[in-house]
Amino acid sequence: MSDVAVGRAVKVTVPASSANLGPGFDTLGLAVDFTDVVEVEATDSGLEVIVHGEGEGEVPLDERHLVVRAVRAGLREAGATVRGLKITCHNVIPHSRGLGSSAAAAVAGVVAASGLAGDPTPERPTGALDDDTLIQLAASFEGHPDNAAASVLGGGVISWTNIPVDGRSAPEYRAVGVPVAESVLATALIPDFHASTEAVRRVLPSDVSHVDARFNVSRAALLPVALSRHPELLWEATRDRLHQPYRAEVLPVSSEWVNRLRNLGYPAFLSGAGPTVMVLSTEPVDPALLDEARSRGLRVLETRAGGRVTVEVSN
Amino acid sequence: MSDVAVGRAVKVTVPASSANLGPGFDTLGLAVDFTDVVEVEATDSGLEVIVHGEGEGEVPLDERHLVVRAVRAGLREAGATVRGLKITCHNVIPHSRGLGSSAAAAVAGVVAASGLAGDPTPERPTGALDDDTLIQLAASFEGHPDNAAASVLGGGVISWTNIPVDGRSAPEYRAVGVPVAESVLATALIPDFHASTEAVRRVLPSDVSHVDARFNVSRAALLPVALSRHPELLWEATRDRLHQPYRAEVLPVSSEWVNRLRNLGYPAFLSGAGPTVMVLSTEPVDPALLDEARSRGLRVLETRAGGRVTVEVSN
Repeated sequence: MSDVAVGRAVKVTVPASSANLGPGFDTLGLAVDFTDVVEVEATDSGLEVIVHGEGEGEVPLDERHLVVRAVRAGLREAGATVRGLKITCHNVIPHSRGLGSSAAAAVAGVVAASGLAGDPTPERPTGALDDDTLIQLAASFEGHPDNAAASVLGGGVISWTNIPVDGRSAPEYRAVGVPVAESVLATALIPDFHASTEAVRRVLPSDVSHVDARFNVSRAALLPVALSRHPELLWEATRDRLHQPYRAEVLPVSSEWVNRLRNLGYPAFLSGAGPTVMVLSTEPVDPALLDEARSRGLRVLETRAGGRVTVEVSN
Repeated sequence: MSDVAVGRAVKVTVPASSANLGPGFDTLGLAVDFTDVVEVEATDSGLEVIVHGEGEGEVPLDERHLVVRAVRAGLREAGATVRGLKITCHNVIPHSRGLGSSAAAAVAGVVAASGLAGDPTPERPTGALDDDTLIQLAASFEGHPDNAAASVLGGGVISWTNIPVDGRSAPEYRAVGVPVAESVLATALIPDFHASTEAVRRVLPSDVSHVDARFNVSRAALLPVALSRHPELLWEATRDRLHQPYRAEVLPVSSEWVNRLRNLGYPAFLSGAGPTVMVLSTEPVDPALLDEARSRGLRVLETRAGGRVTVEVSN
């Protein structure tokens, strides 16, 4: 165990993310170029948590805070200790909207710990812990790796989970990155209400038809290739029959916009468990449509695929 | 309509293929470097069909022959006519073993027609008809495009089908190619009996659990990336819960070898609807195991991913 020097500080920049991307339930993810910044300093004693922006005045500023828990888990994994911590979060990723804010917080925490415990190198740009370890740690807070892997690796990701049959060992969370063509734009339509991932998972059926399962198999296989090399196939590759049809009833506004955009040819889907609607396209969405969305209370974010999480050691 | 000159002849070389590749039911395919050759000549009148090798003395040598039907469909699509045809098939791909012999025959026929109707060019190496058209025509004989697309494009393929809701229009069969890493070896263990694709489809359930559906979604998304860039993930990427568990009972020998090979770390799966067992790996399969398979009546074929269908116009 090594003690992190008092005064050592890191600044982590972590992207938002979109999960599922239509057919890739609990599997596909994409980093979105819209970032939270978390600064963590090793102090002499105690715990100080400061939150600016999203979540300010709402989230607990103690050991229950997700970033704090993630920093603790990262330090434990890296075999490093601190006497005290000062954590300052500059949050812009909206909470409970399907843009991976929780995963981003978990990633920020474990990457901050990684940077406190070891200097970044060209081979290991996040410090003491490698990407596979960061994904494993960050994903364990949520139970699926799609968002966390996207925030760690940047770009697109394919992720999967292996649950040991002993019923006791921790699940194994894995992912590989997928490059995203420069031409792909990400447009988010963000409704002004929260959706609980857990509540929105509850509407899913326990069984589906074999026909629907293989429908999604083919589109999920196609999507990474569409993102990298065939963006003209993004509409076909974002078709889904495993979760969006069931969620339409509890997310009617999101469903309306997904269908409306798709019927106009835009590759739109529910981002994660919603309520955000995401469009991945090479053509910008018609400004008149976006204006209408704004007039109906949706926030519009026109961006692109995001890069990987970064950490700077400031002293 | 243009008349193909009497005496014009083409020679088509078409690869075998493996479909499903574990998780990618009706979706993923791989050309296998093991080829049938079909020669087709425009004659003055009549129809002469000669079959050497696989199928010799078993398949009908008239308009019912699959290659003949495919040549006719290809000529119709290309707007070309012939007075007579002489077709010579040199068949090595075993029939009804899960190696795509029917798809190869259909592809050979439509490509032969394409070469009779127009000279190959660098942009359109198969003559009058482009790859998308060849896949559409060849897949329509089987009702799913995975094998046909692999035989047309070579390498790996991701395919999908759209069935129009009018209930009358023809399904649309589509595919994109996936490059295969040089290091990937394909080893086929071919049992000495036939399996009817239709019979082996009948054992599939109408419904599956949502958990199993998303399990396959993640592995099917991973497989193309494993083939191209991450062959070390082929074992994980060939896991399946949508068809092999149900087929084990009707294909017990194949199932035994799939499980045995997988438990030794080889990425093995049922090729198409079986009974062939395919291994996609960077390490050759242990020769002692292959000898044992041979001693139990399985034929062993050690090969690689195949190239695309080719056509030569001989005069």
